[in-house]
Amino acid sequence: MEFQSLYLKKGEERRLQAGHLWVFSNEVDTHRTPITNFSAGTPVTITTHNDKVIGTGYVNPHSLICARLVSRNLDHPFGFSLLIQRLKFALSFRSSLFLNPYYRLIFGESDGLPGLTIDRYGNILIAQITTAGMERIKETIIAALNSVLPGSAIILRNDSSFRRQEGLESYVEVAQGQIQETIRLAENEGHFLVPLINGQKTGWFFDHRLNRARMQHYVKDKRVLDVFSYLGAWGIQASVAGARQVIGVEGSETAIEFIRHNAKLNSKANSSFTALHGDAFSTLNALQADKERFDVIILDPPAFIKRKKDLKQGLIAYQRLNELAIRLLTQDGILISSSCSSHLQWDIFRDILRRSGRHLDRSIQILEHGHQGPDHPIHPAIPETEYLKTFICRSLYGA
Amino acid sequence: MEFQSLYLKKGEERRLQAGHLWVFSNEVDTHRTPITNFSAGTPVTITTHNDKVIGTGYVNPHSLICARLVSRNLDHPFGFSLLIQRLKFALSFRSSLFLNPYYRLIFGESDGLPGLTIDRYGNILIAQITTAGMERIKETIIAALNSVLPGSAIILRNDSSFRRQEGLESYVEVAQGQIQETIRLAENEGHFLVPLINGQKTGWFFDHRLNRARMQHYVKDKRVLDVFSYLGAWGIQASVAGARQVIGVEGSETAIEFIRHNAKLNSKANSSFTALHGDAFSTLNALQADKERFDVIILDPPAFIKRKKDLKQGLIAYQRLNELAIRLLTQDGILISSSCSSHLQWDIFRDILRRSGRHLDRSIQILEHGHQGPDHPIHPAIPETEYLKTFICRSLYGA
Repeated sequence: MEFQSLYLKKGEERRLQAGHLWVFSNEVDTHRTPITNFSAGTPVTITTHNDKVIGTGYVNPHSLICARLVSRNLDHPFGFSLLIQRLKFALSFRSSLFLNPYYRLIFGESDGLPGLTIDRYGNILIAQITTAGMERIKETIIAALNSVLPGSAIILRNDSSFRRQEGLESYVEVAQGQIQETIRLAENEGHFLVPLINGQKTGWFFDHRLNRARMQHYVKDKRVLDVFSYLGAWGIQASVAGARQVIGVEGSETAIEFIRHNAKLNSKANSSFTALHGDAFSTLNALQADKERFDVIILDPPAFIKRKKDLKQGLIAYQRLNELAIRLLTQDGILISSSCSSHLQWDIFRDILRRSGRHLDRSIQILEHGHQGPDHPIHPAIPETEYLKTFICRSLYGA
Repeated sequence: MEFQSLYLKKGEERRLQAGHLWVFSNEVDTHRTPITNFSAGTPVTITTHNDKVIGTGYVNPHSLICARLVSRNLDHPFGFSLLIQRLKFALSFRSSLFLNPYYRLIFGESDGLPGLTIDRYGNILIAQITTAGMERIKETIIAALNSVLPGSAIILRNDSSFRRQEGLESYVEVAQGQIQETIRLAENEGHFLVPLINGQKTGWFFDHRLNRARMQHYVKDKRVLDVFSYLGAWGIQASVAGARQVIGVEGSETAIEFIRHNAKLNSKANSSFTALHGDAFSTLNALQADKERFDVIILDPPAFIKRKKDLKQGLIAYQRLNELAIRLLTQDGILISSSCSSHLQWDIFRDILRRSGRHLDRSIQILEHGHQGPDHPIHPAIPETEYLKTFICRSLYGA
């Protein structure tokens, strides 16, 4: 790979030296290296005003994050061999931690590969490319995957909304191999059929694996409500863990069919699990009108705060949702409430629970915090790599 | 119980109404109810400037936190029957979550009983009273415990440093029953002898139970270093989970004897675990001088930041400790680093890891966050109830 130079303004190397990987367009010395001279995705060396090379990466003049640092090691620059090394680092950790090859294999910046996400379903790899720099070396990425995990089928699920910010088109393609429409997988003793091509995001949400495992400690013999059920991951695993009755609420008809199919795959769920088709908010209101009560309620909504400008509306939605749920809990019921909005900070989320409790004259105890699983590592210099937050809490009447 | 009135200044009811339980001395209307007129521990109704009663609790004129709210329900004020109700709430949750009766039964404010902590070791209860209000009703507490858990032996481990701020004396006494000096317990398949009377705090640190369980996923066939080993809880559980070799470092000679004894209780630890007597920092330096390397290093230090004024020195100590450990890690080693300082915020702790990585040219991936276990619930309005923080992270050479 050939690298052009990208020069930073004086002092603008500090964030990178502190560990971050992003360069914003206002940090570039555009006199020396006009950003508009680069085509999207060009490999670059990122260089300080006094000619110290920080490392190699790639540039995109159309993006707010105009460059990303990939390697600090000049003997081992961004390219095929580096991709192989990073893939091996990522794979060795996942294969030591997980019994079966079903996990997020690459989580962008946190695995040293900004702009690339890969989920592994056995010998099927579902890759998402979100930057022009990675799009440009698409063939090299596929070659590297063939070297590290030979014989894999590869889907490029390049339809993330982030691509628009990078000026990239949205498409899904089978890059190699035979791909079936669905795949079977197991998680925490539950069995699931997962849509690979037409599902949400890359199909399965591996990030909640440990949170669902913890949930299983709270549901034995309980009546459970699983809101935003999607494929039934939470609710069916609650059934498997011995819940007396589970109701899953889901708005998508396609997903409802998967849930019903998945319930049949698990003998315990087959008898205790019911799927309800409906909007989450109206269903919670209807259950309240019917004076239904649940011992455990699970909330795993889509991101209500996708961008910073959604913050206000999003907070209102989280507050409404959590209050609706707490209202439906029994005397000392358990709420398992998640957010996948990286913009919802832990302390704000906690405060939503506090406020909900006060409004309803309940005492809330926070029992556990759940995070994105270890196959979605967090980069300590890049707060944006943390997004998933789960509270397991207990609500006590009028205490 | 008879309640005197404690009047707040106008507007000073807001924190309590938001869910908090503390009243600071500057919030009291001292014209109407001079604080110095109350004797320490007097039960009070806490009342707004316009005579709205918020609830019942107790007062201490000698403490910065001059009153604590215990019950908002005027039909069920602070007293024997309320203690029974709160103990039952706490017990029902613990006994549903834990197979064996070994856990923190009461965690102060978070369990609705400010100033009271109780650890349960089967039929032995170790209580810590930290406020004058609870000290005053000591006999009532014991009566309530006899009602909820009849036949228990009770130790009052009233030697916490918090007592000084409340003007209380430090003492340890057997309130009732026969107490042996030590007790056997099991945690995550490990077996331990625990000193009940002469150990640190209340003997065993139940708060790390789930974190130690997660640790066990990272140690199979690995070489592990367990720093601040105390009774060997982490290191021996690493051995039990299949670590190839474990070295435990501990500064107290008494603790070292317990560690050695505990290693013998666990057949796997008996062959793989070695206890080293020595100061943590000098031992880490000596291991570095000897070019020793470990696949997994566990840091579970005492609180380096006990009070806010220790912050600066404490941060330096955490930074030094974590850097020393990361330096001793193999190519892609795992660091399991804890802090029990409530004053060390998550983001500051994370930043210590980021900075350590940068200083040593390592790339740090945060894989998991560990929290105090669910028998140490967090009160959503009282950030001080959160103290324990654990990072499981991976350090990669020069990435």
